[in-house]
Amino acid sequence: MDDFFELIAKRESCRNYSEKKVEREKLEKCIEAARLAPSACNSQPWSFTAVDSPEFAPQVAKCLQEMGMNKFTDNCPAFVIIAEEKATLSARVGGKVKNQDYAPIDIGLATAQLCLAATDQGLSTCIMGWFNESKLKELLDISKEKRIRLVIAVGYAVDEELRQKSRKSLEDIARFM
Amino acid sequence: MDDFFELIAKRESCRNYSEKKVEREKLEKCIEAARLAPSACNSQPWSFTAVDSPEFAPQVAKCLQEMGMNKFTDNCPAFVIIAEEKATLSARVGGKVKNQDYAPIDIGLATAQLCLAATDQGLSTCIMGWFNESKLKELLDISKEKRIRLVIAVGYAVDEELRQKSRKSLEDIARFM
Repeated sequence: MDDFFELIAKRESCRNYSEKKVEREKLEKCIEAARLAPSACNSQPWSFTAVDSPEFAPQVAKCLQEMGMNKFTDNCPAFVIIAEEKATLSARVGGKVKNQDYAPIDIGLATAQLCLAATDQGLSTCIMGWFNESKLKELLDISKEKRIRLVIAVGYAVDEELRQKSRKSLEDIARFM
Repeated sequence: MDDFFELIAKRESCRNYSEKKVEREKLEKCIEAARLAPSACNSQPWSFTAVDSPEFAPQVAKCLQEMGMNKFTDNCPAFVIIAEEKATLSARVGGKVKNQDYAPIDIGLATAQLCLAATDQGLSTCIMGWFNESKLKELLDISKEKRIRLVIAVGYAVDEELRQKSRKSLEDIARFM
């Protein structure tokens, strides 16, 4: 089965979305994929706010555009906002002992599954870590004490052609022992 | 295509490995999948040490077993150790401004692709965040200044039957606006 490698080749950050709405069922499947991700001590330290209404989506876009960034989000019909939730006691104690913070890693694991599920359904995504967090919390009624870790743009790409991925070579990042 | 959802259903933490060696080519494909993952500003703040030799693998297992943890790794024929590497300047400055640390999220993104690539090739994995980091660095000649974020056990599962995944419900973690 070569399908999975085709899928990861197809997943790329999209910065040009058509105005076509994202089917609610497809958005749900994206979050379902994230829900099934592994996490430290099965902590699942995450929550997802999917915004696909014509009322809220453009307001989310505005929260992403501080300092002229992410202008492309104006047209994007949907977003998934990922907040960090409190991890289980065992994950927090383990992290304390080892001076590690597992929750952001867990959020990365869930996000990868979300974005690949989107790609699998013909959607495109862009993962963003640059946003006005306090405005976004106010808009989406997310508690001030929580951290929003990522916002994922979700929609249909205007361009169908894939770009060449620019990455370090395998030799530069891997070794075998 | 329902394949991707089958794949994420199949991926589960395996704690019972057969002694069958993992083909080097398959391990390479796992790291190749991680290599193609997205990251903040395309920073790629990661490196991978794949350990599949009969000399080193049992020594890695010992580093994972502090306080009686991860005993199952004794039989595991291969491990991938993921270290955090310095992110690009733009990712670090962006993170500073936004009080976020994107690198661990990026490592989660790469790890998800690695584990799914393993599953896709008939392998099983277990992601571990509990290890004696300094012993592991010494064994693998990883600089003291770096952080090892995760160790992934990779091998063939003894049990073929999948467990039911225990997760919070979609209703508990998601909302739509």
